[in-house]
Amino acid sequence: MSSSQNSADQLRVGILGVGRIGSMHADLVANQVEGAEVAGVFDVYDEGAAAVAQRHDVAQFASAEELIASDDVDAVAICTSTDTHIDLLVAAAEAGKAIFCEKPLSLDLSEVDRGLAAATAAGVPLHVGFNRRFDAGHRSVRNAVADGVIGDLRQVAITSRDPAPPPISYINVSGGIFLDMTIHDFDMARYITGAEVVEVYAKGWVSVDPAIGEAGDYDTVTVMLTHENGVVTTIDNCRQSAYGYDQRVEAFGSGGAALSENHREHYGRTLTASGGSSALVPNFFLDRYIPSYVNQWVEFVAAVTNGEPTPVSGADGRAPLLMGLAANKSVAENRPVTIAEIG
Amino acid sequence: MSSSQNSADQLRVGILGVGRIGSMHADLVANQVEGAEVAGVFDVYDEGAAAVAQRHDVAQFASAEELIASDDVDAVAICTSTDTHIDLLVAAAEAGKAIFCEKPLSLDLSEVDRGLAAATAAGVPLHVGFNRRFDAGHRSVRNAVADGVIGDLRQVAITSRDPAPPPISYINVSGGIFLDMTIHDFDMARYITGAEVVEVYAKGWVSVDPAIGEAGDYDTVTVMLTHENGVVTTIDNCRQSAYGYDQRVEAFGSGGAALSENHREHYGRTLTASGGSSALVPNFFLDRYIPSYVNQWVEFVAAVTNGEPTPVSGADGRAPLLMGLAANKSVAENRPVTIAEIG
Amino acid sequence: MSSSQNSADQLRVGILGVGRIGSMHADLVANQVEGAEVAGVFDVYDEGAAAVAQRHDVAQFASAEELIASDDVDAVAICTSTDTHIDLLVAAAEAGKAIFCEKPLSLDLSEVDRGLAAATAAGVPLHVGFNRRFDAGHRSVRNAVADGVIGDLRQVAITSRDPAPPPISYINVSGGIFLDMTIHDFDMARYITGAEVVEVYAKGWVSVDPAIGEAGDYDTVTVMLTHENGVVTTIDNCRQSAYGYDQRVEAFGSGGAALSENHREHYGRTLTASGGSSALVPNFFLDRYIPSYVNQWVEFVAAVTNGEPTPVSGADGRAPLLMGLAANKSVAENRPVTIAEIG
Amino acid sequence: MSSSQNSADQLRVGILGVGRIGSMHADLVANQVEGAEVAGVFDVYDEGAAAVAQRHDVAQFASAEELIASDDVDAVAICTSTDTHIDLLVAAAEAGKAIFCEKPLSLDLSEVDRGLAAATAAGVPLHVGFNRRFDAGHRSVRNAVADGVIGDLRQVAITSRDPAPPPISYINVSGGIFLDMTIHDFDMARYITGAEVVEVYAKGWVSVDPAIGEAGDYDTVTVMLTHENGVVTTIDNCRQSAYGYDQRVEAFGSGGAALSENHREHYGRTLTASGGSSALVPNFFLDRYIPSYVNQWVEFVAAVTNGEPTPVSGADGRAPLLMGLAANKSVAENRPVTIAEIG
Repeated sequence: MSSSQNSADQLRVGILGVGRIGSMHADLVANQVEGAEVAGVFDVYDEGAAAVAQRHDVAQFASAEELIASDDVDAVAICTSTDTHIDLLVAAAEAGKAIFCEKPLSLDLSEVDRGLAAATAAGVPLHVGFNRRFDAGHRSVRNAVADGVIGDLRQVAITSRDPAPPPISYINVSGGIFLDMTIHDFDMARYITGAEVVEVYAKGWVSVDPAIGEAGDYDTVTVMLTHENGVVTTIDNCRQSAYGYDQRVEAFGSGGAALSENHREHYGRTLTASGGSSALVPNFFLDRYIPSYVNQWVEFVAAVTNGEPTPVSGADGRAPLLMGLAANKSVAENRPVTIAEIG
Repeated sequence: MSSSQNSADQLRVGILGVGRIGSMHADLVANQVEGAEVAGVFDVYDEGAAAVAQRHDVAQFASAEELIASDDVDAVAICTSTDTHIDLLVAAAEAGKAIFCEKPLSLDLSEVDRGLAAATAAGVPLHVGFNRRFDAGHRSVRNAVADGVIGDLRQVAITSRDPAPPPISYINVSGGIFLDMTIHDFDMARYITGAEVVEVYAKGWVSVDPAIGEAGDYDTVTVMLTHENGVVTTIDNCRQSAYGYDQRVEAFGSGGAALSENHREHYGRTLTASGGSSALVPNFFLDRYIPSYVNQWVEFVAAVTNGEPTPVSGADGRAPLLMGLAANKSVAENRPVTIAEIG
Repeated sequence: MSSSQNSADQLRVGILGVGRIGSMHADLVANQVEGAEVAGVFDVYDEGAAAVAQRHDVAQFASAEELIASDDVDAVAICTSTDTHIDLLVAAAEAGKAIFCEKPLSLDLSEVDRGLAAATAAGVPLHVGFNRRFDAGHRSVRNAVADGVIGDLRQVAITSRDPAPPPISYINVSGGIFLDMTIHDFDMARYITGAEVVEVYAKGWVSVDPAIGEAGDYDTVTVMLTHENGVVTTIDNCRQSAYGYDQRVEAFGSGGAALSENHREHYGRTLTASGGSSALVPNFFLDRYIPSYVNQWVEFVAAVTNGEPTPVSGADGRAPLLMGLAANKSVAENRPVTIAEIG
Repeated sequence: MSSSQNSADQLRVGILGVGRIGSMHADLVANQVEGAEVAGVFDVYDEGAAAVAQRHDVAQFASAEELIASDDVDAVAICTSTDTHIDLLVAAAEAGKAIFCEKPLSLDLSEVDRGLAAATAAGVPLHVGFNRRFDAGHRSVRNAVADGVIGDLRQVAITSRDPAPPPISYINVSGGIFLDMTIHDFDMARYITGAEVVEVYAKGWVSVDPAIGEAGDYDTVTVMLTHENGVVTTIDNCRQSAYGYDQRVEAFGSGGAALSENHREHYGRTLTASGGSSALVPNFFLDRYIPSYVNQWVEFVAAVTNGEPTPVSGADGRAPLLMGLAANKSVAENRPVTIAEIG
């Protein structure tokens, strides 16, 4: 795959925002996704966009509007800051483009609804970038549930811990840990169980950095979710993990359990008189999840190309926002909060 | 060690109740515990007591009172049904015997307090049989916390699932899942963290057998505990597990994590075109925990012999009862319940 | 099970030699083997025999001959030093007793043949104590081969390393590493493959303790065996292993592989910024193999009781001796040596 | 990195041969190696070269000679069929280019010597593509040896099995399993131990496909190597493995052991009443070794750029050829063969 293979059967993807995530998406689409190519990029940071455009020998658009309007763009990947997502999504929908939008759709529920309405009205495909659904290990847990391998589901446990917290400047615009970080786990809970969440009970506190607390956020949270079918999910999150990027999912049912366990940086180990010693969990999220991002693109491209539903729908993007808002309320009031209370 | 080596430096243990657990204690004391021996047994079921007495060539007492009063008994192991624990404990205390009492002390908080008061008044050693503290894997987690290996503790997760539920007749007298089964995990939470629990939030439901629900109990519970130091512990319990006796503990802190994982029936495995295949988790609780019961006796005997505090105190026996009562209330009212509300 | 339950349906086992191994056998038969009991013991070291006899409340015989002749003895367990095995085996056979003989039968092939002939002539059951066949993990590998789970067998790898070498005084009478230590792995190779060995190529050297070399032995050996069906087995042995008692078996076939892996002292582990850390392999052979010794007794008792072939036959005891003699010759001459050359 | 970032500080690599391996090298240099870029490609199969040239927007040379002579080429990667390696290597050396040559250098020892002499005479950097040295797991074993973590080395075990045999047409030109497949493990043995091999004993046979035997090759081999320092290495190879690409290395020393274990396709697993189940070992060699190829390029580029020795020297390319020739002789004559006998 490359820009030089431009042809009718390629899905031409325009990338809006080429910061850390957008730049990665551009590289993946350019190098690792059959059936798609980068059609061009835009970023308000001109030099960043220029570097990516040059690297892949593609157009650098003068504005988001221009990229969205281009006849050379079939699909728009929205990788800009969260507060700009919905405006761009609406514009792309009105232009009739297929849409790949990074999570979260928005921190504001009414904005999300405006975006979903626009996509529905335009009849365009909309996908929300919950990449972890495409991780082979997590997917094996979902499949074990969906295929009945572990019988009737009873309990789910999700552990997700970052190696190190982001800068306070990012914390300030993140929407808080529930909407920024736990939102992945809220989505995972729905993905694994295949069931909506009806109630949230959450504890949030500061154990990593007091500055995070001063910024009005928590850095460590534990959440209990009740699903419509009675299954209970627990989530453990922390912004700092000494041993790397801790990413685990576990499902328990009447017929057994399914687990998605951590990777290691490598599979060498030693045995000495001091005991066994093994490598760390990968420290960087891309070391763990690059294949999930590739798989996500492959499935998005296939869905759009074949006119099938996108793998993660707009509704899938909306539900975790409700859960995050419920979690914030639950911590504040120290009580279980129903989703019905939120929206 | 055996009854034929009766000597002045042996702790002579009288066993009250020789059902499944009491019989096991008799065998362990007789065969695997240096410095202790079985002094005699009593059970209301005469033939059961006779079999154990014959097996170890020791006295079968005519009554609990007689055993407790005997000059040949230094310590009394109370392994009878829960509702008889405190009366026997008080009698043994008044007779000046060291006491090893199976968990739970009682289902009734005022009874527990009566028992603890009697032991304190008599100045006798009292140990409560939370054997899992003596499991080498779980203890390694406690040590990693206590020794600072994983830094400041943040979150704990305990998973405990039985292979199959007990008969309904047992459910009826068990005091309910929180006081019968989760009580081990309540103790484990205090043991791992070294911190008291101040609040309990619990969900309990029936997913294994409707007859358990008809008996007024839950068979599946998820609990969130808040400790006095801010650490949050989650507990997942179920009365039925298809893959065996699931017993895991995990602690997470600023410096890393410590995990106690399941054993396997054996460590053979196969790799074929269908993937990897390994043995089950042991199905029977004794297959997992016999060494913990042996270690418990060794430490109890050493403590009594050396005049040191018993490894699990009367207060350690009382605290989990409060947590269990709080959990029952929490499920009933669907709200977090503080320990202070209970007692 | 105990000596006090003496009854007609118990196999009454007389133990000859109650050193480390014989004493263990006495304890296992007394406490853990249904259908068998200790009938009495004899040891040239009088006090050792007295202690074991007292512990199990059984007879201490005045001589091996007396024990063998006793009407209260159904089976004789020969646990004395290797050079006395065959004389005792012949005596027990002539007395019509079932025989459980520790490995190796003898270091002298003609002696072995004399013993086997006596047992055959007398028509008594003869079992040779290769306990590792009764380890659940190793057995799972054998079963995967025998049941066709891994298809047609191609290669086997056996790793067996002791925590620490025995004293030189023991080395001097051991028959050398191939007949003392590797003999277990020679047996394992036959057990796993179900096929005789036709050729041996071996390297032996000293890397642990020069004193072992001065005693004329090796402390480290690597062996390649060719089986009659073309399968090739490698064996790695060493008298010293810093990380514990290393005991592994691996079989590879057209349909996959089966592995028996090491145990750990416990299944706790930590993850910190320095990586993962886990417990040692058990250091003491009994920590690993006690269940195999119990299983061995259970199967021996069942075979004798039911008149079925013993699980490890006299021929199974003879074959590894040939392999050991071939290995010694192979190292000395640095060439592959056929079993046919030996006997 | 991309062709469009052509600049003075990039090592410009010309790729000779863009079949499966050469094409992969082109992609890696183009996309994943800082400090290097693809300068152009040549392949006798014109269309294959055109596709790679177009994909990376680089020159397609008309002949190997033209590529080697080009001023736009700093280093030549020789990825053609084995029988052409030395002629190209000599030409590149005479043109003063840095050389990256795929393994094996040649199947003919005198040819290898001609190549090494040319490189030495020209004073150009020469690297031989034993990529497995750059695998993080295998390297951790080498480091544990080199850093003394496992004390004085005693025994090494290498297991290497392909998922499926190559076509017979490839077998016919491969030089046989020892020079085509085991050669990686011969190199690994030298890499891990840091010691030359002085003697080889090998068994080779056919257990996968009789057609391989008819082609005069073995498909299954077991090898025992003796190193100059007394360490013994065993190698198990097979052309077919039902469970994937089996790649393991294990080193044992006076202070412990170091192991490099297999990866899994993912780290999900299930536990049911049938036992544990996990994912396969990756089936395709690139799934396992792509990072090692990237690391190899990074280290080669750094070495050439900094004027330091290449990570795998010409002598490192020669030694395994001797071992392979010795292994062939050993199987044919069923005796240990010294390296000194070969060359």
